[in-house]
Amino acid sequence: MTYCVGMLLRSGLVMVSDTRTNAGVDHIASFRKMTVWEEPGERVVVLTASGNLALTQSVVNYLEEGVPGADGEAGQTMRDVESMFKAAQLVGQAIQAVYRVHGPALEAKDPGAFNVSFLLGGQIRGRRLRLFQIYSAGNFIEATEQTCFLQIGETKYGKPILDRALTFDTDLRQAAKLALISMDSTLRSNLSVGPPIDLVIYPIDTLRVDVRKCLDEQDGYFRNIRQLWSQSLREAFQRLPDPDW
Amino acid sequence: MTYCVGMLLRSGLVMVSDTRTNAGVDHIASFRKMTVWEEPGERVVVLTASGNLALTQSVVNYLEEGVPGADGEAGQTMRDVESMFKAAQLVGQAIQAVYRVHGPALEAKDPGAFNVSFLLGGQIRGRRLRLFQIYSAGNFIEATEQTCFLQIGETKYGKPILDRALTFDTDLRQAAKLALISMDSTLRSNLSVGPPIDLVIYPIDTLRVDVRKCLDEQDGYFRNIRQLWSQSLREAFQRLPDPDW
Repeated sequence: MTYCVGMLLRSGLVMVSDTRTNAGVDHIASFRKMTVWEEPGERVVVLTASGNLALTQSVVNYLEEGVPGADGEAGQTMRDVESMFKAAQLVGQAIQAVYRVHGPALEAKDPGAFNVSFLLGGQIRGRRLRLFQIYSAGNFIEATEQTCFLQIGETKYGKPILDRALTFDTDLRQAAKLALISMDSTLRSNLSVGPPIDLVIYPIDTLRVDVRKCLDEQDGYFRNIRQLWSQSLREAFQRLPDPDW
Repeated sequence: MTYCVGMLLRSGLVMVSDTRTNAGVDHIASFRKMTVWEEPGERVVVLTASGNLALTQSVVNYLEEGVPGADGEAGQTMRDVESMFKAAQLVGQAIQAVYRVHGPALEAKDPGAFNVSFLLGGQIRGRRLRLFQIYSAGNFIEATEQTCFLQIGETKYGKPILDRALTFDTDLRQAAKLALISMDSTLRSNLSVGPPIDLVIYPIDTLRVDVRKCLDEQDGYFRNIRQLWSQSLREAFQRLPDPDW
């Protein structure tokens, strides 16, 4: 499985993804699920992927090399779309292009096997910062001020802390910390999600990635907050009043 | 949906379940999903149910009135099984009896619609305290000292805190508090799980239910720890060091 979270904030964008893939417990590997297209001053586009790795890698390849239309001609790439809305549409088209090649054979073996989803966040010069979640049919929804985070993959373990603590006005560093805590809850409770963790912080209107990190288990900061968080939770729990029954 | 958790501890048993059922967002109701068979000095057996309500209610009815065998004759009830292992087998037989009546018609409409699971915990005089999770085929697994809690329904939101804080040696009141915190995480993040919350505490070898509560949203203690827990989490999060990047 996978866990990816994207956060659309007043001050910018935070995207985090794990890197574990598994096809059965004896076939576990580590693959980047985050792709960043950055042209400083022009565009920052970040894509994270969940689902069948062969399919999501094909989607990313199309986005690099040009997404073919129904006629098979290679078309636009992620480097030449002119808005984030077009970028989300392009991911949708890439998914549909991959479906045309692999969907029928996959689904003949296993209905529902064509299973991919993406988070796409970023900003293109002169345009708004936006964050989308794109489904396996190529359709998509957008994060808003009210619903400012989106998740794909193993989303449930890490959702309660986001529900409680994240708002549109959370600052970028705090939001990144929160994303790592949310990731930590998922890592601890689900073996199919694993480090290293890819993390990007993008401050709005800068058109430049500010922080891009790949945090492995040896990373001092990540290890530190994971330990402190566990300890804080246990202490917070101990401090709760006991029932009088 | 549903969220139920059962905890097998050195000092006894804790069982907690929500009461929300839904068949679509405009058809939400509240039903008890916990059934307790108590004969003081003789037996305490607690069953919680997840899945299709028509099916789980039928299972409970059979357990009350006698589970029919393949020949259709009414057999044992939960009041006359002589061990918890037999009790778990009886739940399995009741599931299979319900399957014979409703399974084929349900699955003709929707494969996989025969969807039930149960947690069964308790103790019968002269026997061990045990906790089982019973699947929709009637087979079951047992909680152990190493894996001392079992969950059914919407299990993921509430799992991280249990993974972190619960051990076989946690005391009964603390474990009940932890079950309520785990429930709170689920309530906050998933609309299909709702109060009131049924809770049972059974101290080992007493053959008597010690605490049996139905906690609604007005309940002072439950409200209090829910608020304090949220606040503690936010504060604990604030106290975590910021990244140096």
